[in-house]
Amino acid sequence: MPNPTAAMLVIGDEILSGRTRDSNMHFLAGELTRHGIPLGEVRVVSDDHGAIVAAVNALRAGFTHLFTSGGIGPTHDDITADAIAAAFGVAITHRADAVALLAAHYDRAGLPFNAARQRMARIPDGAVLIDNPISTAPGFTLGNVHVMAGVPKIFEAMVASVLPTLVGGPPLLSQSLRLMRGEGEIAADFGALAAEYPDLAMGSYPFTQDGTYGTNLVIRGTDGARLDQAMARLVAMFGA
Amino acid sequence: MPNPTAAMLVIGDEILSGRTRDSNMHFLAGELTRHGIPLGEVRVVSDDHGAIVAAVNALRAGFTHLFTSGGIGPTHDDITADAIAAAFGVAITHRADAVALLAAHYDRAGLPFNAARQRMARIPDGAVLIDNPISTAPGFTLGNVHVMAGVPKIFEAMVASVLPTLVGGPPLLSQSLRLMRGEGEIAADFGALAAEYPDLAMGSYPFTQDGTYGTNLVIRGTDGARLDQAMARLVAMFGA
Repeated sequence: MPNPTAAMLVIGDEILSGRTRDSNMHFLAGELTRHGIPLGEVRVVSDDHGAIVAAVNALRAGFTHLFTSGGIGPTHDDITADAIAAAFGVAITHRADAVALLAAHYDRAGLPFNAARQRMARIPDGAVLIDNPISTAPGFTLGNVHVMAGVPKIFEAMVASVLPTLVGGPPLLSQSLRLMRGEGEIAADFGALAAEYPDLAMGSYPFTQDGTYGTNLVIRGTDGARLDQAMARLVAMFGA
Repeated sequence: MPNPTAAMLVIGDEILSGRTRDSNMHFLAGELTRHGIPLGEVRVVSDDHGAIVAAVNALRAGFTHLFTSGGIGPTHDDITADAIAAAFGVAITHRADAVALLAAHYDRAGLPFNAARQRMARIPDGAVLIDNPISTAPGFTLGNVHVMAGVPKIFEAMVASVLPTLVGGPPLLSQSLRLMRGEGEIAADFGALAAEYPDLAMGSYPFTQDGTYGTNLVIRGTDGARLDQAMARLVAMFGA
């Protein structure tokens, strides 16, 4: 079986308008890297039914897993669950187990379990619920699509619920070397080394510190011994 | 002419691996909103030629403008300019004006203008250079695609160079109301109001403060008088 891959779909006008700065992408990227399911693509789309359906269908076909964030709350602009159902061509209903979870939650809180709150129990047919230890309203997994909340604390808790259930590949390891030399100075030798190690990904990331250019050289791969070997070569080239 | 729209393509393994947290998307989203060119979609892809070409061609066809960030430095993993040339089916060469800019820059800095640095003068045929007041190496505009650096300070300076040259639509205005009430409590009335104002976008964004749920209600649109009217209705509904 080939190693698993992942994509992410961030859903929400508030990200695209610049009102809210997304943090879920960075969080998920780190978690997936540690779990050996490299994140290959991210898309951000607005609260638009057609845009969500098209992105879901493109990404679920191209990657082992698709993780979505946003649009599963109680308000009229929360349209993700319906879009997922449409993307898969399945029905969506108020599901009994989700209704029971939410009814108990609002009962404990002394709040009415009104129509808006009941909306959060609408789950596409065939989905498995994802636990929400923060605010109860569940996410769900349908096929290879994991549908989660946009609120960072809830998103992170749902990722913690889902990830252990997925088969990871070998974790992506990385080593980096920080140099106070510009990229243009080290590019030729670094590029030659990268060509010698086609099984490793080598990237260079410039920065400035006190007005001086520096570069972080990063080597990524799944074979620790090969990483050690390549890093020893880098250190010999450029000094520690 | 219909109002202009925009998409963004973030290019870089370092974002997808979780090593680097992207900040350019949030910056560009805010600038475009102020300029009246709403950001409709963002994609993040890895340093992979085929992935970049496919995303560029999909997004430049779907939006008035496409802004890219990342992959235009001197190292082997900087492959954006070549991918853009391939996407448009045009040649890419060391262009004389870009060579001259960079040669003068490295001459002033007393650094060799080596092959890696010369690589940053490779520009697809037909492109217009984008000024880089920070580190000289230019971005470029080809057709409706604006190709910019990934380093945030340089990206931001390039956006400042490009945006005033683009025809903006009416700026997207927004007003928000912060309530210490949960989304589930206000959803029905808020949804009914949103249905009355189909020309405005209304979104609700939950938060917690000291363990209590609150909601920011946001109204967006281009007609200030309509926004004022809808906000007055909201305040009457829920209190200031």
